[in-house]
Amino acid sequence: MSTKIQKIGVLTSGGDSPGMNAAIRSVVRTCAYHKINCVGIYRGYQGMIEGDFKPMDARSVNNIINKGGTVLKSARCMDFRTKEGRSAAHKQLKAEGIDAFVVIGGDGSFTGAMVFNQEYDFPVIGIPGTIDNDIFGTTFTLGFDTALNTVVEVIDKIRDTASSHNRLFFVEVMGRDVGHIALNAGVGAGAEEILIPEEDLGLERLVESLKRSKESGKSSSIVIVAEGDKTGKNVFELKEYVEKHLPIYDVRVSVLGHMQRGGSPSCYDRVLASRMGVKAVEALLEGKTSLMVGIQDNQLILTPLEMAIKGHTKIDKELIRVSDIMTT
Amino acid sequence: MSTKIQKIGVLTSGGDSPGMNAAIRSVVRTCAYHKINCVGIYRGYQGMIEGDFKPMDARSVNNIINKGGTVLKSARCMDFRTKEGRSAAHKQLKAEGIDAFVVIGGDGSFTGAMVFNQEYDFPVIGIPGTIDNDIFGTTFTLGFDTALNTVVEVIDKIRDTASSHNRLFFVEVMGRDVGHIALNAGVGAGAEEILIPEEDLGLERLVESLKRSKESGKSSSIVIVAEGDKTGKNVFELKEYVEKHLPIYDVRVSVLGHMQRGGSPSCYDRVLASRMGVKAVEALLEGKTSLMVGIQDNQLILTPLEMAIKGHTKIDKELIRVSDIMTT
Amino acid sequence: MSTKIQKIGVLTSGGDSPGMNAAIRSVVRTCAYHKINCVGIYRGYQGMIEGDFKPMDARSVNNIINKGGTVLKSARCMDFRTKEGRSAAHKQLKAEGIDAFVVIGGDGSFTGAMVFNQEYDFPVIGIPGTIDNDIFGTTFTLGFDTALNTVVEVIDKIRDTASSHNRLFFVEVMGRDVGHIALNAGVGAGAEEILIPEEDLGLERLVESLKRSKESGKSSSIVIVAEGDKTGKNVFELKEYVEKHLPIYDVRVSVLGHMQRGGSPSCYDRVLASRMGVKAVEALLEGKTSLMVGIQDNQLILTPLEMAIKGHTKIDKELIRVSDIMTT
Amino acid sequence: MSTKIQKIGVLTSGGDSPGMNAAIRSVVRTCAYHKINCVGIYRGYQGMIEGDFKPMDARSVNNIINKGGTVLKSARCMDFRTKEGRSAAHKQLKAEGIDAFVVIGGDGSFTGAMVFNQEYDFPVIGIPGTIDNDIFGTTFTLGFDTALNTVVEVIDKIRDTASSHNRLFFVEVMGRDVGHIALNAGVGAGAEEILIPEEDLGLERLVESLKRSKESGKSSSIVIVAEGDKTGKNVFELKEYVEKHLPIYDVRVSVLGHMQRGGSPSCYDRVLASRMGVKAVEALLEGKTSLMVGIQDNQLILTPLEMAIKGHTKIDKELIRVSDIMTT
Repeated sequence: MSTKIQKIGVLTSGGDSPGMNAAIRSVVRTCAYHKINCVGIYRGYQGMIEGDFKPMDARSVNNIINKGGTVLKSARCMDFRTKEGRSAAHKQLKAEGIDAFVVIGGDGSFTGAMVFNQEYDFPVIGIPGTIDNDIFGTTFTLGFDTALNTVVEVIDKIRDTASSHNRLFFVEVMGRDVGHIALNAGVGAGAEEILIPEEDLGLERLVESLKRSKESGKSSSIVIVAEGDKTGKNVFELKEYVEKHLPIYDVRVSVLGHMQRGGSPSCYDRVLASRMGVKAVEALLEGKTSLMVGIQDNQLILTPLEMAIKGHTKIDKELIRVSDIMTT
Repeated sequence: MSTKIQKIGVLTSGGDSPGMNAAIRSVVRTCAYHKINCVGIYRGYQGMIEGDFKPMDARSVNNIINKGGTVLKSARCMDFRTKEGRSAAHKQLKAEGIDAFVVIGGDGSFTGAMVFNQEYDFPVIGIPGTIDNDIFGTTFTLGFDTALNTVVEVIDKIRDTASSHNRLFFVEVMGRDVGHIALNAGVGAGAEEILIPEEDLGLERLVESLKRSKESGKSSSIVIVAEGDKTGKNVFELKEYVEKHLPIYDVRVSVLGHMQRGGSPSCYDRVLASRMGVKAVEALLEGKTSLMVGIQDNQLILTPLEMAIKGHTKIDKELIRVSDIMTT
Repeated sequence: MSTKIQKIGVLTSGGDSPGMNAAIRSVVRTCAYHKINCVGIYRGYQGMIEGDFKPMDARSVNNIINKGGTVLKSARCMDFRTKEGRSAAHKQLKAEGIDAFVVIGGDGSFTGAMVFNQEYDFPVIGIPGTIDNDIFGTTFTLGFDTALNTVVEVIDKIRDTASSHNRLFFVEVMGRDVGHIALNAGVGAGAEEILIPEEDLGLERLVESLKRSKESGKSSSIVIVAEGDKTGKNVFELKEYVEKHLPIYDVRVSVLGHMQRGGSPSCYDRVLASRMGVKAVEALLEGKTSLMVGIQDNQLILTPLEMAIKGHTKIDKELIRVSDIMTT
Repeated sequence: MSTKIQKIGVLTSGGDSPGMNAAIRSVVRTCAYHKINCVGIYRGYQGMIEGDFKPMDARSVNNIINKGGTVLKSARCMDFRTKEGRSAAHKQLKAEGIDAFVVIGGDGSFTGAMVFNQEYDFPVIGIPGTIDNDIFGTTFTLGFDTALNTVVEVIDKIRDTASSHNRLFFVEVMGRDVGHIALNAGVGAGAEEILIPEEDLGLERLVESLKRSKESGKSSSIVIVAEGDKTGKNVFELKEYVEKHLPIYDVRVSVLGHMQRGGSPSCYDRVLASRMGVKAVEALLEGKTSLMVGIQDNQLILTPLEMAIKGHTKIDKELIRVSDIMTT
């Protein structure tokens, strides 16, 4: 089968993440290197269904390695979850002569790819592009490292003003189901407490801890809160709770929001994207399919999409302990 | 009187802003240059009332020119608004042998300084430190330039993800009474619309403008909203309004908040702070008092505190026009 | 004449500077706003001579306001200094139907524009785009503010390692004939000494000053040197000299080079560029010619190109004094 | 023996790297967590010999996690290579009651620690702090990630101006014996060629490659050169060579130098430092000695110092191949 692949499509799907452009560039150039045609598919599966295609040669991806976002645009696509939608997509791909595709996105995008592969025996490879780092089969997802740097840089700024006024800040970061950003950025930013979806710290313990922190002479406190933290309270409710139960603090709130998805990718994410793009294309050329490229122990590995989707990443217990020790 | 000044106090007061540390450093080193003693007054007027003083020599301000926040801490102080509070402060200053002080802050801080000067004939000079750029008597306040850079850098990141998803973002920036940050950062970030306290654009015009922007083929839209914008709606209400009246957009909101106050100061703010600190100390040594240092046409000028407080800065009509033209 | 202008060309010429893209965008959109055609002229006067033109509409400049460099490319062009070259350029402009142009560049570029205007009565307006801030008729040139931020950010990094090792660094910054970058970035970075083309500090005084700095207990020293500094020694020779005459220091050298020209423009430069582009196009539409747009006291002004070229900017004596006081 | 450890010293040694302060903070706080005393040893082994000690409690390391350089200062120390020097150091440690130490540095620092451990049976643990990533026993050294980001950010700026003028730049990065920075930053920055100490590309192939790059329509070219690259030519000589053999390019040179060592650490380096500090202290408390903490497959591991010193890191062949493919 591998000998038959002449034209590879590439798309970005779901929420965007820094490094997606670097991955697109890598897919395109690896195709060029192997004298294979490459076609950009715009707006994720929606563009696939609508035939929103554009041929891409090596020069078409000049100067995008350092750009945030995705030049191919991205979208969440309901239609691709239906048989009709996938059938339309398949027709468009056939009409364009596309033999295989690489999809850069998260687990929703991979589910679509896997089902499509099953239905049409169509070769697909996934690249994990999401800032949440919540994909099984890779230690790091594309964009996670950049998002962490964005978050700590912003919290460094918030710390400046927090210290100047001896204030307590609740800072909400992304992570509805997983606390990887909160935990890593929390340790990196020297947060006093970190609230994540995986663990219930308990509001009383939070108040106790903040009290201790104040008594120990700290000039400011930053509490990082993942969107989906286990206390069930959002940052505004947490502010109210603490103001009521610990009136010694002047409390402020900051919700970082979508800035976490943007920005020029870090060197790590650019290199990872470049490596993954090569691996994805070459896996297709070797006749492999329905796999996701991941990184483990600094080596690229391939994991069945099915496992990538069903598996769960675990929060790092050692890092939680480090976080506790750091707030001594 | 000038010959009698032997010891100068320096304090930061009100909301902190980037460049305050550079200004403290400058005041301290200018004192050292003129063989005058310098004393740091902690936590604004509160620390003055409590006698929270620390002598500062030239070396004590090493390596702070590039730090955000204020090493002297800052606070808003209710007690200094009372006769008793100011009397306590005066006793503390006398006990410490402080002959004059430089206060770095905004108009509230200047009002306190002016009243104190009137009551005790105590030499005071103000340096305008606030990100809002809302002080009469200076074209730029300390921290404004840095805050603008912080805002445009964050909006550049938001633009990445907005473009990737063809989204509309409402981004709230600081400015309860004045739109300087919103207008300048809006032009700098290439915003489609800018809502400020000084002008009522009208919600209908906003909707019209966004509609036109979409039709013209723009891939994303950013609307900058000052906290106190004239529409009377906050960013969340604006989102709702637009979603209802212009359902073609996928709308998101971002509230930048306190990160705007922090961060390492820009070169401009560091240089301005250094210049203002020299001018403030030397004005005191020349026997001047109750004045604010400002910058106009790149020259330092002195304005009576009374005028600085009562005067109003005006929004730049030319820049509003530039902003309109840029959204063509 | 003004009524006849239907098509305006825009070019960037000479060394590039951050903010040039923002200025191009502004010229293009101001043309669109006034329903005038706009044509991009590539590679400066060289592209004008070769007819390297491309029509630009409002959408063609999307998402470039925050990009360093120039999308129109730039070049230094010898041919335009000859009558033949300018004649060829004039023919190309006529053939394309271009009635006037805006040139973004430095004094060399303005000289070409002025001569061309004299020879062909062709309407031209200049926008000062150079990091050197060496153009008469404007307090700030486009790119100067960004370059200063780039320099202080890099020196902040160098300071980290200098402090850790108690080292002395000579850091060379751009400025062959003028010391504006060196002086401003030097004050902003807290440099111990600043060597500029305009003043001869003298090598002995330098050694004396560094000796005093060491004795005063400073943990590191940074000396900023403009390329064309008056001592006549480059940074490597200065290192040798100081190592010989002041062997108490471990000395290192850093030449910042071309990174100073790049990078995303600061908010100030983006706003300035946007304002200047509007002014330039509207000046042409009002029938004005052979003028340069400048900024003074935060207002846009127009200066004859001849004066802009012949005039000299002066180094700020007050800032030199501030610099001296800061090293106390 | 482990039960006897009551006081742990911590020092930074050799060239500084971003993340050293975060590691110091972690060592100090982990000691506080375990109710062990901690003593800062200034200026590396030199300060150990001279008894330049200062007790450090948990609060003494507030707000340093995000600072470049090292608050303990660093130095290269010849005296510690002698028996007399080490004997003096041992006396000082005993006098201070220090039972064990953690040294943050590179292989030279580890050699000293290992010898000292052998001679005095003194418990020591190493943390690999160097930007070069050249230590066996860890996939990443502290500071490597930050240095890569610094390099790609600077090259992004150089690319701006290179593209505007269609220029070729030779950019020298650190790495006398190893090409890890050059290779990773080269891939991250999208360099056209990367010259490293481990491989001899050959000057002819370089010229061929640059010629091909020009012909393929690239607007600029960046060649990254490690200090110790195999061609034996430095960047200035390479410039001359290429200008002579490939006169189609306008060539420039940039030597990045010491800025690569400074700057606020990336989130990755801050987290890694925090984890390594905990591991180092707890290894000592468990009675372990003469080991280095490393990270492999995102898990902390311990490697005998002897192996860390003697082992060699290998350049990543897969990444060289990725680099080649990316320049298609």
